[in-house]
Amino acid sequence: MEKISKIWLGKLPPDSLYVKPFRLFYVQNGTEKNWDLLKVHDSVSIILFNKTTNRLVFVKQFRPAVYHGIVSSAGDSIENIDLEKYPPKIGVTLELCAGIVDKDLSLVEIAREEVLEECGYDVPVERIEEIMTYRSGVGSSGAKQTLFYCELTDEDKLSQGGGVDDELIDVVEYSIEDAKKLVSKGSVNNSPPSFLFGVLWFLANKVPQ
Amino acid sequence: MEKISKIWLGKLPPDSLYVKPFRLFYVQNGTEKNWDLLKVHDSVSIILFNKTTNRLVFVKQFRPAVYHGIVSSAGDSIENIDLEKYPPKIGVTLELCAGIVDKDLSLVEIAREEVLEECGYDVPVERIEEIMTYRSGVGSSGAKQTLFYCELTDEDKLSQGGGVDDELIDVVEYSIEDAKKLVSKGSVNNSPPSFLFGVLWFLANKVPQ
Repeated sequence: MEKISKIWLGKLPPDSLYVKPFRLFYVQNGTEKNWDLLKVHDSVSIILFNKTTNRLVFVKQFRPAVYHGIVSSAGDSIENIDLEKYPPKIGVTLELCAGIVDKDLSLVEIAREEVLEECGYDVPVERIEEIMTYRSGVGSSGAKQTLFYCELTDEDKLSQGGGVDDELIDVVEYSIEDAKKLVSKGSVNNSPPSFLFGVLWFLANKVPQ
Repeated sequence: MEKISKIWLGKLPPDSLYVKPFRLFYVQNGTEKNWDLLKVHDSVSIILFNKTTNRLVFVKQFRPAVYHGIVSSAGDSIENIDLEKYPPKIGVTLELCAGIVDKDLSLVEIAREEVLEECGYDVPVERIEEIMTYRSGVGSSGAKQTLFYCELTDEDKLSQGGGVDDELIDVVEYSIEDAKKLVSKGSVNNSPPSFLFGVLWFLANKVPQ
C-alpha cells in the first residue's frame, strides 16, 4: 500500500506548519530549568465499530516519523537510507481514524469529517459519542486529544475513504478476537498507545463480557 | 508540589539534546512528499502495583510541554505568561513511572533503575514483567516504548523516590476504584494515553473480575 520509492532527510525549515520547536524556561524551587518542546495541533480520534460486520474499523498508513524512529534507533544513518534493508512497510502503522484540530469547527464535527474522509462512512454528529480527553504526549508536546466512539453500519458507507488530497490511507477491519490480540501481553505494535487504549476501552465497555 | 515562580519561552538551540527536528522527504506513488518530525529517545514505562496497600503507584510532575500546550491552545501569548491566569499546577501530569533509553543497559534494567529513582522501590529485574511495545507517537516522533508490569510491597521501599538530580517528582498511590475513574467515560486527564492504557490493561488483566 505504501508505494514508496525514495526516502531522504533534510533540515527542518523555520516556517514548518507542523513542527514548531521551542525551549521553555522556568524557575522551579529556586533553580532555573529548561525543557525543549514543540507546539503541535490538538486532535480527535474515533473508535469505529461496524455493527453490520461486527468488526472494528482502523486505518493503516505510512508514517514518516515511525519509519525514521525505527531506522535511527537501529543506529543506522538516516541520511542515505537503504530501502532494501529498511523497506518502507516497516513505517506503516495501524491506528484509529483521527485528525488534527485545524478548522473552526466543533470537535465532534471534525471527528465526523475524519470518519468520512479517511474511512468513507457518513454519520451525523448525533451518533458520535465523546469518551474522554487526555494529553497526546507529555514529553515533547502536550497537545490535547479527544477520543470519540461511533457505531457504523454498511449503509453509512458513502465512499472508499482513503483521505483527502494526496493522503494514502487504507481502511481495514478487525474482528473482536483479532483486536484482543493487539492488546495482549507480548504484542509488538506499530501503533500509538492512544490506539491501544481505544481498542481496550472498546473491549472493556462496548463488548458484552 | 510544582514550586514554580516564573515561566518564559525561548528559541530551540541547534544543539538540543532532546528535540532534534528534521524534515523527511519521500516519493510516494510518484509524488514527492515531506513530513516534519523529530528524533526522540525510545523509552520504558512501568505499571506498579503495591500489594501491601492494594494501590497503584503513579508519579506526578510538572510537564513544560503540557503547560505550553494548554496555554497556547487557549490562544494566549506564550511569550509573556501570566502565572495567575495559568497557574503552573495546570501543567502537572499523572503518569506511570517511566524513563528514556539513554544508557547502555537492557530495557528491563533501565525500568528497574527508574522504579528506584522515581518511586523509591528496589526490585530485582526478575520481578519486572515485560508486557508489550508500541510507538509512543506516530505524528511527530516514532519512538518505541516498552511497557512493563511490577508488583511491589512496602518491604521493597528503599527511599522516597522523587527522581535524580533536580527532578521534582511526587509519588502517589491510587486505589483500584479511583484508577477505574481515570479510564471511565467523561474523564478529563492531564495524562498521556500510554498511562491510560497501562491502567486499563492492569484492570483488565491483573485484577480479579
